[in-house]
Amino acid sequence: MSAMSGWSLAELAEKFEVQLRGNPGQRIYSLQGLKEAGPDSLSFLANRRYLDLLKTSNAGAVLLHPSYADAYNGNVLLTEQPYLLYARISQLLEQSLYPELPGSYRHPGAQVAESAQIAAGVRLGPCVVVGERAVIGAGTVLEAGVVVGDDCSLGAGCHLYPHVVLYPRTQLGQCVRIQAGSIIGADGFGFAPSANGWVRIAQLGRVVIGDYCDIGANTTIDRAALGETWLGRGVIVDNQVQIAHNVRIGDYTAIAACTGISGSTDIGQRCILAGGVGLVGHIQIADGVQLTGMTMVTKSIEQAGSYSSGTAFEPTAQWKKTAVRLKNLEQMQRKLTILEKELLQLQTRQGSNDARKSRKQEKIKTGSAQE
Amino acid sequence: MSAMSGWSLAELAEKFEVQLRGNPGQRIYSLQGLKEAGPDSLSFLANRRYLDLLKTSNAGAVLLHPSYADAYNGNVLLTEQPYLLYARISQLLEQSLYPELPGSYRHPGAQVAESAQIAAGVRLGPCVVVGERAVIGAGTVLEAGVVVGDDCSLGAGCHLYPHVVLYPRTQLGQCVRIQAGSIIGADGFGFAPSANGWVRIAQLGRVVIGDYCDIGANTTIDRAALGETWLGRGVIVDNQVQIAHNVRIGDYTAIAACTGISGSTDIGQRCILAGGVGLVGHIQIADGVQLTGMTMVTKSIEQAGSYSSGTAFEPTAQWKKTAVRLKNLEQMQRKLTILEKELLQLQTRQGSNDARKSRKQEKIKTGSAQE
Amino acid sequence: MSAMSGWSLAELAEKFEVQLRGNPGQRIYSLQGLKEAGPDSLSFLANRRYLDLLKTSNAGAVLLHPSYADAYNGNVLLTEQPYLLYARISQLLEQSLYPELPGSYRHPGAQVAESAQIAAGVRLGPCVVVGERAVIGAGTVLEAGVVVGDDCSLGAGCHLYPHVVLYPRTQLGQCVRIQAGSIIGADGFGFAPSANGWVRIAQLGRVVIGDYCDIGANTTIDRAALGETWLGRGVIVDNQVQIAHNVRIGDYTAIAACTGISGSTDIGQRCILAGGVGLVGHIQIADGVQLTGMTMVTKSIEQAGSYSSGTAFEPTAQWKKTAVRLKNLEQMQRKLTILEKELLQLQTRQGSNDARKSRKQEKIKTGSAQE
Repeated sequence: MSAMSGWSLAELAEKFEVQLRGNPGQRIYSLQGLKEAGPDSLSFLANRRYLDLLKTSNAGAVLLHPSYADAYNGNVLLTEQPYLLYARISQLLEQSLYPELPGSYRHPGAQVAESAQIAAGVRLGPCVVVGERAVIGAGTVLEAGVVVGDDCSLGAGCHLYPHVVLYPRTQLGQCVRIQAGSIIGADGFGFAPSANGWVRIAQLGRVVIGDYCDIGANTTIDRAALGETWLGRGVIVDNQVQIAHNVRIGDYTAIAACTGISGSTDIGQRCILAGGVGLVGHIQIADGVQLTGMTMVTKSIEQAGSYSSGTAFEPTAQWKKTAVRLKNLEQMQRKLTILEKELLQLQTRQGSNDARKSRKQEKIKTGSAQE
Repeated sequence: MSAMSGWSLAELAEKFEVQLRGNPGQRIYSLQGLKEAGPDSLSFLANRRYLDLLKTSNAGAVLLHPSYADAYNGNVLLTEQPYLLYARISQLLEQSLYPELPGSYRHPGAQVAESAQIAAGVRLGPCVVVGERAVIGAGTVLEAGVVVGDDCSLGAGCHLYPHVVLYPRTQLGQCVRIQAGSIIGADGFGFAPSANGWVRIAQLGRVVIGDYCDIGANTTIDRAALGETWLGRGVIVDNQVQIAHNVRIGDYTAIAACTGISGSTDIGQRCILAGGVGLVGHIQIADGVQLTGMTMVTKSIEQAGSYSSGTAFEPTAQWKKTAVRLKNLEQMQRKLTILEKELLQLQTRQGSNDARKSRKQEKIKTGSAQE
Repeated sequence: MSAMSGWSLAELAEKFEVQLRGNPGQRIYSLQGLKEAGPDSLSFLANRRYLDLLKTSNAGAVLLHPSYADAYNGNVLLTEQPYLLYARISQLLEQSLYPELPGSYRHPGAQVAESAQIAAGVRLGPCVVVGERAVIGAGTVLEAGVVVGDDCSLGAGCHLYPHVVLYPRTQLGQCVRIQAGSIIGADGFGFAPSANGWVRIAQLGRVVIGDYCDIGANTTIDRAALGETWLGRGVIVDNQVQIAHNVRIGDYTAIAACTGISGSTDIGQRCILAGGVGLVGHIQIADGVQLTGMTMVTKSIEQAGSYSSGTAFEPTAQWKKTAVRLKNLEQMQRKLTILEKELLQLQTRQGSNDARKSRKQEKIKTGSAQE
């Protein structure tokens, strides 16, 4: 079972405990999309909108939910969760593309303080710097140019890609992955105004990141003013995310790229923040909240559910008109109120009862927006 | 007076010239929030909404505004500006956590051009690169992997954290701090269209940053096409801020994370830009302007004051309806106009004078929006 | 013809094949804005709103469109495209400010794998790392701290500024420029949910960047889950742009700073995305689309043209009212509908025909929004 020899479908079915339909001896050497896959490749259907591609796919085998089993004539591995099985098999194939090197290694250009504790199987690339009293867990990999400050602590099995910087006293759990260029533990943005300008508030806290967190590239997580900036277990964070000082993020929350979270905000567990979201500081976000892309969150959210803000895009010429009208909403509201009053006066003179009736109806409607 | 021995309240009161109420011999070893502080810690009340925490705090002493002096029974240091005093004391305590090392130092892995001028007390970490004719002021610290290009000039007392890059000819005043991963002086984004695609405009200017500026992590400040991209004195800039070529930023302006400022825009003094703000190019922002989070600024602002844009977040299902209605504003406006006209016709037929009256009232109201 | 001796106007006119009016012997040593330029400097007028500056400029010569030839009395170089000529001359002058060093160079601190292929004239700075089987084209420059992963391929004439990271298997065409701190080929953000949290989807694809692309500082371009994240020829990308896995960007498209493009989105040729734009994943953007700053794109765009979203900024106090009114749009709409109905009833009673008439007129208008 290796990259060279590939994997037979029988081997995959046994390893991942799923049902195989078709040729057990068919060998798989790579993963591909339904369109690109040839007879040596495994593919998958995770979204019904690609059902048409399934019919014409040349894949050697396809991961399918049982309800689509009949939609493909070739070899299939049947699973209730095709996307999850795809994830697991992708990790298997990764090892052939990017084999993890075994054993300890220290590049001669790595700078390691004498007081640092380096466990077994740690690999240190060129230009790595490890500070005083830092503790690096077993099997952790620090790629070129990674800087680990004094008194940092990294669990076993972490992987830090090139140029990641951990400021002093940062603490990572086990199996934390951080993509290149991310900066963990930089100064939180805290200043007190004075007559002579801003006076810096020294940031005396640190960053603590839980087990199995996965952090993207060029992301920044600032250390706390006092206490901790804290990420729970299994939090996943994309590229260019900004997490300010004293933020707390609950277990298994996912944060997509370009999102910014202001200081001391507390985000619950299993939330999903899409890209470009912004949150003000000092608010609480409940467990299970989802925020769509570019949502601006200006106060706490107490109920799980999906939230959004922003306006739909339009051709620019039209958008300019909408923008003007938006500013005129107040005037529209006022005109509407006057019209209502005047109409009522007219109706009263006519002795009409219609007005009262329809107003009653409106009151009934107001509870649920129906249109 | 050190980290080990702590500071007595008497020492702190004398050093910062504030009034002490309570036990002058009480020793302080750390700063903590009101909730976390124990008898060895100093805490502070800077926001009245934490007044309840004050009552139950176990802090060894609290920094308080005189008007809250009676709200705490324990030791207090009284000051008109508790937050400012907290800032000053935080810097004192920082020295025990992150002591600044004294004297000159050059790591053997640092690369310094022979023509560079390095003043006394400069500290150069591993993998630091200093280019030709660069001038580094006294006591400046360049941490691991910092790159200082040819002809750069850095004042005394600067601190550049790991992997900061200064492109050639960048000029920093004294006591400039730049967090890890920030890139100062990269190419401005300037291209001329041609029949064969974009033709790059060489960026011949530079970046000039004033004394006491404080720049966050992974921020980018591009060099000018011609002339200077310029930050005044005491400007504070958070993480992941983008400052384009030929931008000018006045003294003591503060810019929070993820904000982007387009080319040639000119920002006044003592402005406060919250996170995620965006400004188009070639505009002027007056002194003292404040922009709330994610505000989109599409034209100059001539008056000090606070400005905002964007829509409030809502549950996604409701937001989708709002978005549709927004596009229908034009139609609503048109219907409203028709209704007004028709109502007037009806009123005219009835010989009513009410219409004219209420229209008059509206004109009076229009000045000040009251609702 | 050098920085020291400058260029005579005759030389410039000949080199760029444009018409000279004035003193052919006038020597030019630098480029400057109309206001700053002195007799040794060349300036240009690319935007008619600076026409006033032209009248008082002391420039040694000005690049002008023939239609403005009479607006300046001094020396002029006449061209249909003054901005383009400015771009070309800026590159000429750049060579005197930042001369490209000739010949091969390998800093002793550079780490180059034995299996890597380094062409003639390649320059490798301190702390550069080049991985196994990497191929570096002729004349390519890798500045300090650049990391080139295993199996990468770089064309001739590329220039990577300090601390750029190319993950393994990244492919760059020729003459690709990447500013400092950008990360190419990091893990795409792909995870499958499971009962035990997120399961990472190994990203088995790569990034392919076409000839003459120009990438800004601290930008991130993720490698594909399967297949390629792809940039065509001559794409220009500013600072802090996020390009997710499996995105495709057509030739000559321009992307300004702080823009984020979600996974698998496909952007056409010659598009222009202004700063802070956000695009959701799995959509198509047609050739020639322009997006103004901070536009939120939630679905495909099939027609060339300019698109926008967002609201105009207002004083914060007013904005808060607008935000509330926006949420009340539904109620306004409902009231309007009721008023229409009631008015019709009144009109019907009066036997008026006016209502029917004006409704007809509205129907005619509805096609084209005219106001």
